[in-house]
Amino acid sequence: MSGDIESLRSKVRAFAEEREWDQFHSPKNLAAALSVEAGELLEHFQWLTEDESTSLSDEKRQQVAEELADVLLYLIRLADKLGLDLGQAADRKLLKNAEKYPVEKSKGKSTKYNEL
Amino acid sequence: MSGDIESLRSKVRAFAEEREWDQFHSPKNLAAALSVEAGELLEHFQWLTEDESTSLSDEKRQQVAEELADVLLYLIRLADKLGLDLGQAADRKLLKNAEKYPVEKSKGKSTKYNEL
Amino acid sequence: MSGDIESLRSKVRAFAEEREWDQFHSPKNLAAALSVEAGELLEHFQWLTEDESTSLSDEKRQQVAEELADVLLYLIRLADKLGLDLGQAADRKLLKNAEKYPVEKSKGKSTKYNEL
Amino acid sequence: MSGDIESLRSKVRAFAEEREWDQFHSPKNLAAALSVEAGELLEHFQWLTEDESTSLSDEKRQQVAEELADVLLYLIRLADKLGLDLGQAADRKLLKNAEKYPVEKSKGKSTKYNEL
Repeated sequence: MSGDIESLRSKVRAFAEEREWDQFHSPKNLAAALSVEAGELLEHFQWLTEDESTSLSDEKRQQVAEELADVLLYLIRLADKLGLDLGQAADRKLLKNAEKYPVEKSKGKSTKYNEL
Repeated sequence: MSGDIESLRSKVRAFAEEREWDQFHSPKNLAAALSVEAGELLEHFQWLTEDESTSLSDEKRQQVAEELADVLLYLIRLADKLGLDLGQAADRKLLKNAEKYPVEKSKGKSTKYNEL
Repeated sequence: MSGDIESLRSKVRAFAEEREWDQFHSPKNLAAALSVEAGELLEHFQWLTEDESTSLSDEKRQQVAEELADVLLYLIRLADKLGLDLGQAADRKLLKNAEKYPVEKSKGKSTKYNEL
Repeated sequence: MSGDIESLRSKVRAFAEEREWDQFHSPKNLAAALSVEAGELLEHFQWLTEDESTSLSDEKRQQVAEELADVLLYLIRLADKLGLDLGQAADRKLLKNAEKYPVEKSKGKSTKYNEL
């Protein structure tokens, strides 16, 4: 999988600046927009069985790819507006998750950490 | 902003494999989980004014950073399970958005492309 | 199933007025809050199979009932703030759906109306 | 505001049964669908200021009314499939909220109960 978050950050910022969209891009609004896009993504899967969701048609896969992109672009934009380093945040969260979900306790279980 | 999507992809995959979570990670379930995390992110902003959302306390910023990370990790996991290249999808979507939102027509406007 | 929307509307309004919460209850904020609650509802189901979701434990059913209530209360509050009649809107939407999804074309299919 | 939840429940059930949609209406799927509709509702507000959200155009208000209806119809359908009484759940939640948010402590504050 390709993709460098810093490079996307600068493209997304330039895109918004050119269009003078900074005025709409408060963190509150971006968090709402991200949630809306996550809903559009979920819409593609809502009536599929889990099995069906693993073998999408090419057309559907392309539609889903666009929704994934929308979520990522708002995510990067929101992190940028908040001055947060998204890659660093993800690395830290993985370490924290490793503590919350020790392999021996969570293996093969979907239980939430506070109920393990 | 740091962050290399491929490197995160392989860490997230290893994390899930070690815990035998593949069985839960159907694209359908991951899309739902991503939407749930987007909701948790939005919760931090729901009662704030837009202005307040631009100047979070340090504590709140750290909480928000964790939610951003959660969304990113599910996003990468979902793209991986679907065999989609997230960085490429984002680049393509930016090009498509540039066509849908020409600078001269969309400058300073939050109007959706189909109403421009 | 019991429940009279008008009676709930007046209780929810009184609740908010007593606490001087009107200042936070812009339609925008209420729509965000409703979406957050919908995410909390979905969280209960995200890792369950469809089958498992039909036979929740008593404890889980009570938790889900609370989330359903949260969604309904924000829904009623939002309709009230917008001066919309929720029951009437639901009746109208059912009629519209009956046109979009004629029985003979949609029987046994989860296809969206614009793809039928 | 009009609306009797029991009457809507029976209409929604008949609608689904006529179309043999029961097979798609697992609680898990309905919770996802409800979340998707909540996102569509939020989409109408995402770029509006709070002020703007209080004075929608007639056209926009009608669109929003339809989204509210969609959320209500899935909510009632989900409660029905789970054998839950939605009106009773809402009444109970209001009582619980009154305990979590005592008037004297929560007046004029949007603080979450666990931080009051």
